[in-house]
Order: sequence, then structure tokens, then C-alpha cells
Amino acid sequence: MASNHPLHRLFEPRHVALLGVSRDTSKAGYKFLRSLLDAGYQGKISLLGRQAGELEGLQIHTSPDALPGDIDVAFNLLGPAQTPEVLKAVAARGTAFSVVFTSGFAEMGAAGAALQDDMVRTCNASGMRIVGPNCMGLFNLHLGLNLTEISPLPAGTIAMVSQSGNVGVTLWDQARKHDVGFSCFVGFGNQADIPIHEYIDYLGQHEATKVIVVYLEGLRPGAGDAFFRTCSRVSRLKPIVALKGGRTDAGRRAAESHTASLSSSERVYAALFEEAGVIEVSQMEHMLPVAEALMRCPPMRGEDVAIVGSGGGHSTVCTDEVESAGLRVPAFSEDLQQELGRRLPAWAPKRNPVDMTGAYTSDPSLFASLTGLVMQHDAGFSAAVNYGLYGLWKDGKVAEDSEYDYETAAPLIGQLQARLDKPIVFYTPYADRPHPSFTAMREAGVPCLDSVAAVGAALAALRKRGRYLARDVDTHAEAARTDEPAARPPAGASQDYATEVGAYALLARHGVKVPEVLTASDADQAVAMAERLGYPVVLKAVLPGVAHKSDVGGVRTGLGDATAVRRAADDISRNVAQALGSRALAGLMVASDLGRRRELIVGVRRDVSLRTLGLVGLGGVLAEALNDVAVCLLPATPQRVERALARLKSARAWAAFRGEPAVPADAIAALLNQLQAALLSDPAIASVECNPVMVIGDRVVPVDAAIAMHDKE
Amino acid sequence: MASNHPLHRLFEPRHVALLGVSRDTSKAGYKFLRSLLDAGYQGKISLLGRQAGELEGLQIHTSPDALPGDIDVAFNLLGPAQTPEVLKAVAARGTAFSVVFTSGFAEMGAAGAALQDDMVRTCNASGMRIVGPNCMGLFNLHLGLNLTEISPLPAGTIAMVSQSGNVGVTLWDQARKHDVGFSCFVGFGNQADIPIHEYIDYLGQHEATKVIVVYLEGLRPGAGDAFFRTCSRVSRLKPIVALKGGRTDAGRRAAESHTASLSSSERVYAALFEEAGVIEVSQMEHMLPVAEALMRCPPMRGEDVAIVGSGGGHSTVCTDEVESAGLRVPAFSEDLQQELGRRLPAWAPKRNPVDMTGAYTSDPSLFASLTGLVMQHDAGFSAAVNYGLYGLWKDGKVAEDSEYDYETAAPLIGQLQARLDKPIVFYTPYADRPHPSFTAMREAGVPCLDSVAAVGAALAALRKRGRYLARDVDTHAEAARTDEPAARPPAGASQDYATEVGAYALLARHGVKVPEVLTASDADQAVAMAERLGYPVVLKAVLPGVAHKSDVGGVRTGLGDATAVRRAADDISRNVAQALGSRALAGLMVASDLGRRRELIVGVRRDVSLRTLGLVGLGGVLAEALNDVAVCLLPATPQRVERALARLKSARAWAAFRGEPAVPADAIAALLNQLQAALLSDPAIASVECNPVMVIGDRVVPVDAAIAMHDKE
Repeated sequence: MASNHPLHRLFEPRHVALLGVSRDTSKAGYKFLRSLLDAGYQGKISLLGRQAGELEGLQIHTSPDALPGDIDVAFNLLGPAQTPEVLKAVAARGTAFSVVFTSGFAEMGAAGAALQDDMVRTCNASGMRIVGPNCMGLFNLHLGLNLTEISPLPAGTIAMVSQSGNVGVTLWDQARKHDVGFSCFVGFGNQADIPIHEYIDYLGQHEATKVIVVYLEGLRPGAGDAFFRTCSRVSRLKPIVALKGGRTDAGRRAAESHTASLSSSERVYAALFEEAGVIEVSQMEHMLPVAEALMRCPPMRGEDVAIVGSGGGHSTVCTDEVESAGLRVPAFSEDLQQELGRRLPAWAPKRNPVDMTGAYTSDPSLFASLTGLVMQHDAGFSAAVNYGLYGLWKDGKVAEDSEYDYETAAPLIGQLQARLDKPIVFYTPYADRPHPSFTAMREAGVPCLDSVAAVGAALAALRKRGRYLARDVDTHAEAARTDEPAARPPAGASQDYATEVGAYALLARHGVKVPEVLTASDADQAVAMAERLGYPVVLKAVLPGVAHKSDVGGVRTGLGDATAVRRAADDISRNVAQALGSRALAGLMVASDLGRRRELIVGVRRDVSLRTLGLVGLGGVLAEALNDVAVCLLPATPQRVERALARLKSARAWAAFRGEPAVPADAIAALLNQLQAALLSDPAIASVECNPVMVIGDRVVPVDAAIAMHDKE
Repeated sequence: MASNHPLHRLFEPRHVALLGVSRDTSKAGYKFLRSLLDAGYQGKISLLGRQAGELEGLQIHTSPDALPGDIDVAFNLLGPAQTPEVLKAVAARGTAFSVVFTSGFAEMGAAGAALQDDMVRTCNASGMRIVGPNCMGLFNLHLGLNLTEISPLPAGTIAMVSQSGNVGVTLWDQARKHDVGFSCFVGFGNQADIPIHEYIDYLGQHEATKVIVVYLEGLRPGAGDAFFRTCSRVSRLKPIVALKGGRTDAGRRAAESHTASLSSSERVYAALFEEAGVIEVSQMEHMLPVAEALMRCPPMRGEDVAIVGSGGGHSTVCTDEVESAGLRVPAFSEDLQQELGRRLPAWAPKRNPVDMTGAYTSDPSLFASLTGLVMQHDAGFSAAVNYGLYGLWKDGKVAEDSEYDYETAAPLIGQLQARLDKPIVFYTPYADRPHPSFTAMREAGVPCLDSVAAVGAALAALRKRGRYLARDVDTHAEAARTDEPAARPPAGASQDYATEVGAYALLARHGVKVPEVLTASDADQAVAMAERLGYPVVLKAVLPGVAHKSDVGGVRTGLGDATAVRRAADDISRNVAQALGSRALAGLMVASDLGRRRELIVGVRRDVSLRTLGLVGLGGVLAEALNDVAVCLLPATPQRVERALARLKSARAWAAFRGEPAVPADAIAALLNQLQAALLSDPAIASVECNPVMVIGDRVVPVDAAIAMHDKE
């Protein structure tokens, strides 16, 4: 383990101080010491308390100035009023880190935030860094280090980085039932100093950690790029699972109250996680099973799943969950079904799913042997699910003449998984309680889950991991993104962006050409403009205050030559005069006619976590109602655009579909990068959005553009 | 309890026979007898076995003809080969019901189905009805009747009707951990004789049953109407919860292999369940928590939820799950926040969610008192969620000076729920194990759940129930739907439906007018046609084999008078000649110009479960890619149409949205009913679909129609 990592002394301290200890055994000030001693911590422990004396054989110091000068981690339990001053003194003693359990800082509003900022600044100035405040604590069980109130803790190979304490407590509690445990934990609470990606970076090189579980309410402002780069690298080495707290508007308000997190929208995190190889789960209940699957199983390299088990209802429900998770359960070939038929009773379904009916109680090794038969017969399957009332059905008894029982049969499934190098996930409703057969299965590498929905989530996660590892290393993740110096906008230009002319001029300077819309005062001028634009054109009446121009005969499309334009101008004038009076027509708009096409929204905007981000979505008349938009990280690449389009509800509309080609991801990526350059050219611009962008073969043509400025403060 | 219900003797038998008993205590033929005796069944028991003698003090008969003549239920364990013959004899003895555990019938294919049909027919002829075959058995624990292999079973007030045995076993197992249990169970397997709605009908009047849980893989063909009528009525009396197995294509294949169920699509069941007040859950893991919530709580009469508990991460995750379930967690008013501030520490979030932080360990009654404060202050909330590490945090110890402990504080929440008559749902991660405080909470009426996702599912279910109960009684559910005699189609008409002319003529006979599209050969004729149709019109080139007419200048829209039409005809001729040569133009199509509108798909088709059903969905260019369609039960009513539109992914596009009015549900309902009449007029028609249907103010105008015929067999 690299001892030169910046967080080495935090996770592997030789000397821990507890600030705010108490002799009252019912108080946190005692319980944390108890946890630390019970965990078997071998390093030095110093105590700071109100009353001098001894506690568990350790001297209590009453002044921070009396503490030793070689403290690695000072764990702070003091109240918010005393904390800043004490930490300042502790920092001045040369302490490397303080873990601040104490609440009452930025999560309370502006005054608390100022207090927090000041405390961090002062401590940092003395070289001390802060975990928290408002956090659960930290542990590294392989070192006997437990700086939480909970004791004992289940030790294992999962590391957890959590913005919440009780989400941590929930997972530790569940872990005990599933033969898993934790290597390290850090609660980072308000994340005032050390940003989450530093912990992930440390855990990436922590040997005892096989998988990293993250509960995140929000990145620090501007930390998106660093989070992305770190996770992109670490997730190539070991899986990272994340639950994003605050996925809804009210959830974001809750997160802000809880840890003062200013969270970007769900869509930003969806993009960030997918691009960085972080596997997002949508339910807290799925964090642990997904981590277990990623920790134990090889990744999934295709979509097709074979399902083999016992029990018709479970077989149907498993199939539904696997398909709902975006995977496939295709029917077996006839000859595979026939081969299965030689091993199974006539009434056993064999088409995929396979339902061996009760046969396994006579021979529980059938799970491994039938799954092996299927997977070896058809190499097209990338994973298998086993399901059944395994382990505890009929008090765990199998037929007396069976060579195997549940415990001895379980490792066979793990051996098969290793041989195939494809994941096998097991479902039994009994898996939420300890049983030797489940332990044996897990030790052999097969996750044994108590929820069919979790099986779907686990396979979806294994597939995401397979896709990420198969992807070329993202060079954009490796290269630090340099902020291009902002192009100096022409003097006074900012004011003009709100108008079409100003917006189009800005875009044109960055290579984006929005087809011109010209305004003619009469038919001759309209013809001259049409000649300049090229045919066919559309002609529209300029009718201030009239919503539906076509209702009054004010629109003509597909005008192919001068004669047509002239006639159309004439028609429109006549129609409008008839409908609205002779003075209604304020002019004639002339524009190229692009026909009826697939319409996208393509835009860029600034973001609290990422500096800038791209947006792609469903355009056209339904855009506002359907609000179907995905985030694309910038700089955009065709691959990033493709993945963003695939996250849309309307994904099928943009892929190749019944004769229509896929929309050109490279052209969209180029447009996004041009729009980003336009955005960065003026710090006053908040967003640039083109809607609609017409898809014309391998080109995309932005037909309209809107630029929004930051609100004046 | 009504003793004259047709299934009375099935669920409350005075005399049970077991067919196929065995002296071998490891065999099912013994175990079922053991279950029955252990459950304390007080009725008469008769046995049929291969060898004469006694078993547990009961005589074994070796011939069915020797069995008594007053058997209510004969439980059949014999193999599939013997079963039909023995059942025939048992039926002839006057037995009322047989529960056929045996597999090997319709689920095996055509031969098995024929065997099954024949068996049912023979038994029915003697007056005996069949449960199953291929089923788990039956129990009525309040009577000590247990006809399953599992013993003991958790007794309670949930009834379960399940097409799967192992889904039943899973729920019974989970029930033990959550202080719930079952009144009755029936596994109906292949559903060869008694359709599921008869069991639901019985359980609707079964006093000890408070909620009915259904696992369904498929209704019997044609049973949709009866299922709908029964559930509509029963669900007014007690909640019905359903999981539909086979929601995906592969899941339907699994269901077919398992119970020979020919299942309609997920969308059909979504409509059927919602219209009949059946509350659908999407995860097997949510069946029991949702049933528990519906059983214990009053329904939810609005969307807004107050969240009060302890722990920031849980508060955020709960908020996300509640909002993701389609409900709202609005911020509290300033004065309510101030009032909470007087009871809570300064750092406790109070905006909704409320996070009392650790305060509850000093006084667990804070859950009830703070929730009471919130709900009484703001009557706009329709439900509350409590969350926290309740019951087992720090070994279940609270502060020594607390008036309440976890167990004594729990009933206060139930009392509050009763006083408010609004549901309160509690989340604690420890709720999956027995604890007196959880039992006390549940006995007081508050569901205590171990999954945040299940909290979301439970509230969504309580809201659905509130909506159903608030709805007027559906008169369509009460009135038996009479099959209108099929209107006699004009001789030979069937052949013509595939053409536009034939299809439009059929629709016109049923009151549906598709705007005419006329074909002119020259400009004069086009003008004459336009005059007939009324202005504005569109003119399109007839260009066989050319996909994009507008690309060659072949389309003109918004033509408001004869001059415009003439000029457009001239333009189009010229454009087409230039682009494709002078012989390309085959004519000019003339149609009314409806402008650019919201476009729907509206159709009707025949269905395996329901006789006919309606479809509404997203029309237009994206329709095929997005495949966003919902089923509307027929006859359509405006309310049914509104609920179907609300099930669409594009729901927001059809509701009132930023100035656009909601689409006219009454007009859509009228169109659906006309289309149904057209469908029913000819048995050869499989479906009628109008796409697009333009929404114009309060009218809907079908612009095109397609009629599909049944495949010739």
C-alpha cells in the first residue's frame, strides 16, 4: 500500500486523539473511545476532555495545547461553539487530520457556512485537513481503527464513502446477514474541505478494498471534473457503486438541509456516473446486493441471460425483472431444449427459463450441472440466474440418497462461474438469514440474494461494468481540462445576445451557422432573399401578436422558384388582409425549407458541479411537454453523444430504426463543442440552446438558438 | 359468512379426502396429511391410497368407489396418468371440489391441454369442480384447514390467490418477520375450471379477510369482463393487490410454460387493474408491504406527504422515493417551520423532511408529537412518513429519563393515524426482524417497513386506493356487457377493408368521418375538389415510389382559395417535372389542411382476455419509435380515456399544459366507441386503428385509418 498517498495518515493513523471525551459511559464522549478500544486499535491514543484524570488507563488532557505534536487524526466530538477554537489549537500542534463529527455548520444556513469556511481556512493554514463536519466518522477495520459509535462492525472488503451516517448504519446492519463486510468507511458530511474524489482515489489503491460503495448528496461546487477523472481511473481497477441522494426536487431540498449540498440535477449525475464508470443504483436497498455482485462476479459482456432454477412463479418473476433491467432472456434452441429434456421430467419447462420443478431436492447439484449444460451449449449467453427455494426449503433437507446437500452443492456453482468467466447470480427468498449453504455459495464467488428485484439490479450493474471495461480509455478523462481563456467578446455584445441577430452572430463566430431568416417588405424583396438562401424556401407572414399564422393562410412552404415565391407572397397578403384587415401584415419572413425532419434540442450550460455541460433531447412540438433531455459531458465526443441519446426515454427515435439511419453523433458532438466555445467566450452567458436542430442525413442544422444570461445579482 | 356462496364448501369443507396418501413420512402423500392434522382440522378426513390399512388412525381406502359420498374437497396427489380416472370416480361419488396438486397437464402443451379439458369436462358433468391442476393447494387457517406441504403457516387476515406456489411460500416466509399472516390461500395453477375471479368473489365476503393479494400470470381467455366486474365490486369492500407475472415478452413465455397462461400485454392488465380498483405492484418484494399498508391504513386522499424522522441520509432517500412514486413532498410554511423550531435543536432540518437528528433517543414519542404538530398545522397533507433507526439503535436503549421507550411510544403513532384518518407509514431498517416495538406499532395500525422503496410503493398504493374509492361507482362494471349482435356487413365487404376506400366506408357507417383525400388530374379538378372540401387545403403530388414529396417541391399547404390552389398545382407540376421528369406526376391529392396539431393514435382491437379493447397513444412521426400506447377499457368513457392518457409516458402532452387545453376525452371516448362498433360489425376484423388523429380544440379528427383482418388459418 502506497504510504505516500495524501490520505495515508487519515486511514492508517499511528496516533489518534479524541477531542471531547467523557467519563459518563452513556455519552458519545465515552462510546467513541470504547469503539476504538474494542476494535483493537494498536496505535497511540490521546484524549482531550473537560476534567483532568484518566479514562481506560489513558490520560485526559484538558487543553489542546497540551496534546502531543504527532497526532495523525483528531476526532472531534465537541459542540459547535467550542470546535473552531479547539481545532485551531490542535492544528497548530501539527495534527494532520481532524474528523469533525459535530453538526451545526453549513447545513444550518449562511451563518453556519461562514463559521465552517473560517474554520477550514484556519486549520488548512496550519496544514490540518478536515473530514466533515457533520459526519458519521471513519473506520479502517483491517487496522482496528473504529471512529464511529457502532461496535462491533462487520469486517470485509467493501469500502464505503458516505455523505450520510444512517445510510452507512443501514448497510452495516444488512451486511451481517449476507456474509459481507467493510474494509474502510468515511462519512464526509458537509464535505467542507476534502472532496469525495480524494477518498475514492485513496480507496482505489487500498489493497484490502475490492469494491467502493458511495452515498452522495452532492459534489462540491466545481468538483465535477476532478470527480470524473478520479472515478474514471479508479473504476478501471475496482467497481464503484453509487446512490445519489436528492434525485428529485424535494430530495435536493432535503440534501441541502442535511449536508448543505447544492446538487445538480439527476441528469448531470447520470451522465457523470456513466461516463466515469460509476455504477448508479436507484434504490438504497440495492446498494449492498449490487456491491456484492460486482465484488464477486466477472463483468457481463453481452445482454443475454439464461435462467435456471426451480419454481414456476419465481421463474416468471425473475424473467420479468431481468428483462425490465434492460437485458434479454431469449428462448433456447430446440436441440438445447432436447438435451435438457434428457435430464429433466417431461413437465419441466425448458425454453429459458428452465424450471427443474422439485428435482433439486433429490440432487441440489442440478443447479450447477444444468446451468453448465446451458452455458456450455450456447456461448451466446453472458450470464446466468439461478433461482429457487434453496437452502431452507423443507428444513434444508434433501433426499437421503443425494450425493450433495445444499452446502456441498453450492461451491459447484462458483466453480462453474470461474470456469465460464461469466456471472451467475443466485436468488432464494431465504438469503436474508445466515445459512452455511449461502456462506459456501458466497465464498465460492456467487452472490446469493434475497430479492428478485435485486437480481435485476445486480445483472444490470454487471452489464454496465462490462460495457465500461470494454470501452476505450477515455482520453478526456486523463487530460486535465484546461480552461480556455475566454475569447474577448466585442464591446457591448452581451446586451445583444437576447435578440436573434446577436445570438446568431455569436454562434457564427464559433462556427455554428443557423440558417438565415430574412424579413422582406414585399414580393420582390422576398424573391431576392430566396435567391440568396437557395430554394426551396418557406414564406411566413410577420404578424405581431398572432399565434397561429397558418390559421389565417399566412404560411407557404416548399417554394421552389421565384414564381412560386411571388405567388406565395401575393396569396399571403390577400389571405391576411381578408382575415385580419389590410394593415395587419408587417412583413414576410423568408427561410430555407428543410422539410419535416427528426428534431433535437442541443444545448450547453454552466453547472454547479461541472464547469459546463451539454444537453441533447427530444425537440419539436412535444419537447416542452415530454421534457426528455440527457446530459452529455464536454468536450463532446461521438461516443458520449451516443450514450447520452441512449439515456433518453425517446432513445429509439435516434437510433437506426426501421430504415431511418441513426442520428449523426459526430455532427452533434461537433455542434456541442462549438456551442461550448460560444458559452465560454463570455462569462455572462448562462446557457446556449438550439431548438429545434433538424437532422438531415449526416448533418444537423440548428434552426433556432436562444442565449440566456446569468441573472443580475 | 354467507354459506350459500358457490365456493363455500371449497373453503369451509366439513369433509376432506386425500387422494394418494403414503405411509412413507418423507413423501408428499404423508406430508399433506401431517399438515392437515397439525393445523387442527376438525372435519372428517378420508384417505385413498395404494395399500389398505390405517394411517394416523384413519382408514385408507384403496378404491375411489369406496370413498364416502359427502366429500366437500378431494385433494389429489396422484400422478398425471392416474388422476383423470380417479377424479372421474370421485366426482361420481358426489364430491363437490377437487384440488389437483398434480402437474403434467396443459402446461406441457397440446396433448396435456386435451387431457386437462377432458378431465374437467368429465368431472363437471358429475357436478365436481376443479382447482388447478398444477397448483400449490389451499388453506383456510381460521378453520384449521391446511392443504399445502408447509406447516405451520402464519395465520392472519391476508388472503392470497396465487397462480404460483413458490410466490406463496415466499410471502408466507416473509410474513413471519412482519407481524402479518394469512386467512386463506388458494393456488389455482392452470386455472382449468374455476376462474380467478370466483375466488376473489368468495374472499370479498370472507369476514376474516381484510386484504386480498393476487399473483396472476394470465386470466382465462375471455374472462376479462367477469374479472373486471368482480374486482370492481370487491375492491370497494376491501383492497386487492396484484403482481402480474409475465409483464415482459420473455416473462409471458415463462408464464405459458408454467401455467399455460396466454397472457395479454402488460398494458391490458394495467388498464384492467386500474379500472377495477386492483392495486398493481411491480416487484414481488413489494406485495407484502403494500398489502400491510392497505390493510392497516386509511386511504390517501391527496398527493402531499409530510416526512418526519431522524437521520439526514434516510430523510433524503425517503423524499426521493416518495416523489419518485408520483407523490409530492412540498416545503412547509414558514410559521410551521418556526413552530417546529421551538421543539427541535437549531441544527435540525425543518422544511419537510423534518430531521429531528438524535432527539428521539431522549424521547421516542417525538415521532408522534412532531408528526401530529405538522399534520394538524397543515391540513393539506394527506399522509405522513416516519423514518429513523427506531427500535434497535444502540441496543434499543433510550435516555433513562424518557417517559416513553420504543415500545410504549409506538402506539402513539397509531393513535395519531386514527385521529387524523390519514395514513402514516414507518421506515426503520430493522423492521425485518421481530421486535416488541414494531409489533406494538403494527398492532396500533401503522405499517413498519424495512425498505424505503417499499414505503414509496405503499404510499402510491394508498393513493391509488384513495382515488378509486373517490371515483363514482363504474356503472359499466355493474351492467353485464351484452354482445351486440354483429351488424351484418355488406356482402363481400371484408375483402375491401384493406383499401382506404373500404376502410373509410366501414367507419363512415359507424359515424366516423375521415376527412376526404381526393385525387385530381389537373389544376381545374383540384380547385373543384378544394371547393367541395372547404379551404384551407393541402395539395400533394401523387408520386408513386417517392418517399419525401416535399424534397422535390411536391407539397403546398395552407391554400386558402382557388387562385392559391391553381398556382400551387402549377408550381408542383413544374417542380416535379424539373426534379423527376415530366412523366413522374401521377396526380394531385387534395385534402383539408388541419395545420400542425397534437397527434394521437386511437384504435380498437380484439383481445384474448377482454373481448375488445381500446388503445390511445402518441401519434405522429415519433409514434413508431416511442411506442407509447395505453389500453382503454370499452365502452370508453371520458374518465376511462383520461386515466388511459395519464398512464402514457407522454401524459403531460395531453393534459392542460402551458396554455394548451387538455385533449377532449369525451371526443376520444366517442371515437373509440364508434371504432368498437365498426370492429364488432365483422368478426373477420382484428383491429381498427386511426393514426394520426388530430386534436383540434374540442374535436378529434382521424386523418387516416387502417383495418387489419385476422390471419387466415
